Amino acid sequence: MANIPSGMLAPVATIFDADGELDLAAYRENMEFYATSPLDGVVIMGSNGEYTLLSDDEKIRLIAAGVEGINRRRTVLVGTGVESTRGTIDLTKKAAELGADFALVNTPHYFRPRYDYAANLKHYLSVAEASPIPVIVYIMALYTGVDLPTNLVAELSQHPNIVGVKDSGGSAPKVAEMIAYSSSDFGVLAGSASFIYPALVLGATGGIMALANVAPREVAAIREAYVAGDHETARQRQFTMLAPNAAVTSKYGIPGLKVALEHVGLRAGLPREPLAPLNEKDAADVRRILDAAGIQRAR
Amino acid sequence: MANIPSGMLAPVATIFDADGELDLAAYRENMEFYATSPLDGVVIMGSNGEYTLLSDDEKIRLIAAGVEGINRRRTVLVGTGVESTRGTIDLTKKAAELGADFALVNTPHYFRPRYDYAANLKHYLSVAEASPIPVIVYIMALYTGVDLPTNLVAELSQHPNIVGVKDSGGSAPKVAEMIAYSSSDFGVLAGSASFIYPALVLGATGGIMALANVAPREVAAIREAYVAGDHETARQRQFTMLAPNAAVTSKYGIPGLKVALEHVGLRAGLPREPLAPLNEKDAADVRRILDAAGIQRAR
Amino acid sequence: MANIPSGMLAPVATIFDADGELDLAAYRENMEFYATSPLDGVVIMGSNGEYTLLSDDEKIRLIAAGVEGINRRRTVLVGTGVESTRGTIDLTKKAAELGADFALVNTPHYFRPRYDYAANLKHYLSVAEASPIPVIVYIMALYTGVDLPTNLVAELSQHPNIVGVKDSGGSAPKVAEMIAYSSSDFGVLAGSASFIYPALVLGATGGIMALANVAPREVAAIREAYVAGDHETARQRQFTMLAPNAAVTSKYGIPGLKVALEHVGLRAGLPREPLAPLNEKDAADVRRILDAAGIQRAR
Amino acid sequence: MANIPSGMLAPVATIFDADGELDLAAYRENMEFYATSPLDGVVIMGSNGEYTLLSDDEKIRLIAAGVEGINRRRTVLVGTGVESTRGTIDLTKKAAELGADFALVNTPHYFRPRYDYAANLKHYLSVAEASPIPVIVYIMALYTGVDLPTNLVAELSQHPNIVGVKDSGGSAPKVAEMIAYSSSDFGVLAGSASFIYPALVLGATGGIMALANVAPREVAAIREAYVAGDHETARQRQFTMLAPNAAVTSKYGIPGLKVALEHVGLRAGLPREPLAPLNEKDAADVRRILDAAGIQRAR
Repeated sequence: MANIPSGMLAPVATIFDADGELDLAAYRENMEFYATSPLDGVVIMGSNGEYTLLSDDEKIRLIAAGVEGINRRRTVLVGTGVESTRGTIDLTKKAAELGADFALVNTPHYFRPRYDYAANLKHYLSVAEASPIPVIVYIMALYTGVDLPTNLVAELSQHPNIVGVKDSGGSAPKVAEMIAYSSSDFGVLAGSASFIYPALVLGATGGIMALANVAPREVAAIREAYVAGDHETARQRQFTMLAPNAAVTSKYGIPGLKVALEHVGLRAGLPREPLAPLNEKDAADVRRILDAAGIQRAR
Repeated sequence: MANIPSGMLAPVATIFDADGELDLAAYRENMEFYATSPLDGVVIMGSNGEYTLLSDDEKIRLIAAGVEGINRRRTVLVGTGVESTRGTIDLTKKAAELGADFALVNTPHYFRPRYDYAANLKHYLSVAEASPIPVIVYIMALYTGVDLPTNLVAELSQHPNIVGVKDSGGSAPKVAEMIAYSSSDFGVLAGSASFIYPALVLGATGGIMALANVAPREVAAIREAYVAGDHETARQRQFTMLAPNAAVTSKYGIPGLKVALEHVGLRAGLPREPLAPLNEKDAADVRRILDAAGIQRAR
Repeated sequence: MANIPSGMLAPVATIFDADGELDLAAYRENMEFYATSPLDGVVIMGSNGEYTLLSDDEKIRLIAAGVEGINRRRTVLVGTGVESTRGTIDLTKKAAELGADFALVNTPHYFRPRYDYAANLKHYLSVAEASPIPVIVYIMALYTGVDLPTNLVAELSQHPNIVGVKDSGGSAPKVAEMIAYSSSDFGVLAGSASFIYPALVLGATGGIMALANVAPREVAAIREAYVAGDHETARQRQFTMLAPNAAVTSKYGIPGLKVALEHVGLRAGLPREPLAPLNEKDAADVRRILDAAGIQRAR
Repeated sequence: MANIPSGMLAPVATIFDADGELDLAAYRENMEFYATSPLDGVVIMGSNGEYTLLSDDEKIRLIAAGVEGINRRRTVLVGTGVESTRGTIDLTKKAAELGADFALVNTPHYFRPRYDYAANLKHYLSVAEASPIPVIVYIMALYTGVDLPTNLVAELSQHPNIVGVKDSGGSAPKVAEMIAYSSSDFGVLAGSASFIYPALVLGATGGIMALANVAPREVAAIREAYVAGDHETARQRQFTMLAPNAAVTSKYGIPGLKVALEHVGLRAGLPREPLAPLNEKDAADVRRILDAAGIQRAR
């Protein structure tokens, strides 16, 4: 992976033990698996990593454990966005020291009525100037209520230390505009396996996908078919992944992801409260959906 | 065009004279142009046809004029959705009598807090049962606030007289799900030229696109490249159409479309109030964007 | 009732027979009851009158029947707003000819991304200039997605033929601002019985309330206590009406209103499709709520 | 102030120095002023205290400074809500140790599609069980996108350690329902000075209002008139505070609040980035609005 982020990446789930404490050993164990999978990289503290549920101290410990688990075998992105610009810079510097390759910076959002074009522009430029590692803009409008417009993404793409964007929204016109209007050395990453194939067709360089946590081979196979020029196979593999993707995102969220992790033989545990674990009926539905899609056990 | 709606279609702009009256002669004149263009068909009274701004009587006169203008040379869809089920059935029957090939039925929306899965299902099934012509579901969430879920679309696709869906939202996962989950004899149409290429790649059968009003050749050329297997040309043509498409939809809406129509040499007039015509600065922007994209004059 | 709209009014439910046809006799029968009730007036074709589900012809017949039923014993407002400015003017003129005292003009909304301050201002001024009867602005953001800002309401209040506003949103700051910033000869009407007491305290001149259809005495009693300076009684009566109000609005909508009408002995019938009648369990809940609040039979 | 929260409170602005560091001396200085004002209490780390922009360590230092500044002369609420249940409990315990009288617990919101009735119920009950001090539920839907329904508030009000709610939304029906449906030993606090008078009339026990930072006397005077039974004076004072309230909330936000603080002679500084300070034109508008409303200098 060059300076432009690309490839198929998993926003790795954070693992908690029965008392709700970070289970760093389990986290490293899953990282060991991803480091030998077809995936190109991982994200520590993406939204699926429940990063907003961690304390400042826990974040540092989690980054250290994740980097150690990957041990330079795959690209490591770290989610370093917090609500303040200075806090984001602080965490980005620490992540760089701990070995992150890229900083994935979610949009500030609590005071979003005040975060206009100029405020977002200044925030990202300040972070990019201060960051020792390349910055990737992260747009997750479902959770943040903030959807950066494509002309702002295009303007940010001109900065030499802002090298990509991850957008989880799934808008095909927006993916197209971000690619068409941004600088040539800028990577657009799909934020979900639900639209990785059309995103690649439009010129996306890869994706960061919750489903890659549990189906790294199956998700990577979509891109393999596309790269080989076999559109029909890519399209069919995309269709097959729609239901399992929904099971660990829109339909059941992180609680569904934890059930799915356990089902494929990875370390799982429960989500942190106030996220509630799935009831048994919903958990069975997750397992059924994964099996129906032919998703293999991780090990 | 068989029973499944397909191909590249224009939701034709309705033309008003200087007094705000329907200008049916001008409308027919534009239809004459579309009937000899590379387009596969037209929509009378799509959203871009300002159908919600017409009286009951005007709707009938407009359908008659449009059908006459096309004169069986292209497929004709007519927007027949109104807020009530019985009103929709009445208008659908009249459109069929007047020569429509398909009814394009927008979602009821005024009382949308009450329109759950069951209410929408019953509405469309009632219309489909009563309609002499095949029905296409129309989802235009930006204006209606109603976004039918893909499982409902899939259930509707099982009815023999519901043959397709037009969705203007641009969500790539939703396009994928509608295609993957619906019956095999069901056509999914992109509702905007901003995502026609990725929609085709996913298996959409065509599109209904405001931009086709002013750039029928350029829009049709996207599909031609795709059909020829030339993905890179299709992708580039898609990118070139992004800015002109925005100019006549999200950026300037129907007032922008009217300016664009005049710029390419078609009959235009002003939008009906409360839609306001563009000021000269915005109109110049529309013209500049069309020229920059190399959109040719219609005649 | 002077030139400023005031008092307690019911947005009268439209009655349909078993075939879904307008039942004008039943409608007139209910009007007869309201004309001898403690209510100050009625609204023909408010949202609760299902006006968006009526054809152009039906609207004229309904206005005529309603005006005839009231027979000058109460103030009559008619909802004359449609999507186009010219259509609104046409219907307003017809309503005036048929005997309406005021026109209640809902905001245009289908193309709401284009309806900015200037477009809304021009629309209402055009209607006010052309209307033979005084105009009341109607804001129903839940259904329309359009919430006119208070400075626009204040500017509209300066026009001599725009005499009031009905806002159904329930925002206390907005009610306060509309009263504080508008001209002194302008009436602000609460659009729901759920906030009639605090609205009166802030200076509202009255209300148009779905619940007044079924509980005219109980609703009027809130205002009577307020006028008498008995705040504690007004407050308690307001509290007592919260649950029945929700039953015929937010909780069960117009289908709930139809059940409630029947329960108090008025003509009811079913809502028009795609509105679905309540199932028996929900209908029983409506009746239970009305009884628990001590709402008397109409006759 | 008894166990039920009541009275007029200021959500005190956090002060940053020219380098963006916490200025605890300035913060204590403002607290000194509030402790001798007509206000009944203060909130440390409300939304207006920019709490989401602080690190974990800064939060502890700010609480300590604020409690010290008040020095038991007024009631002290501390905003202790973070995204996780365990983090909220931790911070609540620390705030109690540091001398807080009440914990004001904002709704978790990042994963809001997963936070249904049961998840919110469990979160608040867990916090209430673990908290050494009484808990007040905090609803700030504009920033969080989470609006707890009134039946959930009512259920929470049954817990002996959940003693009140602050809602900043301004919905009059919701204020009425929260008061009518909650337990008798439960305080409902208006979350803005824009609706404090109608809230009091409905039975609210007080308010937490950004404007109280800069106009404690003027805001307290609304309640004084109400308590004295002088509704007309209360109403006029409410109207006079509408524009200044908007200037420090909806119109200019926290940047406007900082300008206003300086204008009345209190310690101010700049907001923390990505919040941007007002430009001079907007700042002049804030000062003009405060002067026009007759708001006096603090000292």
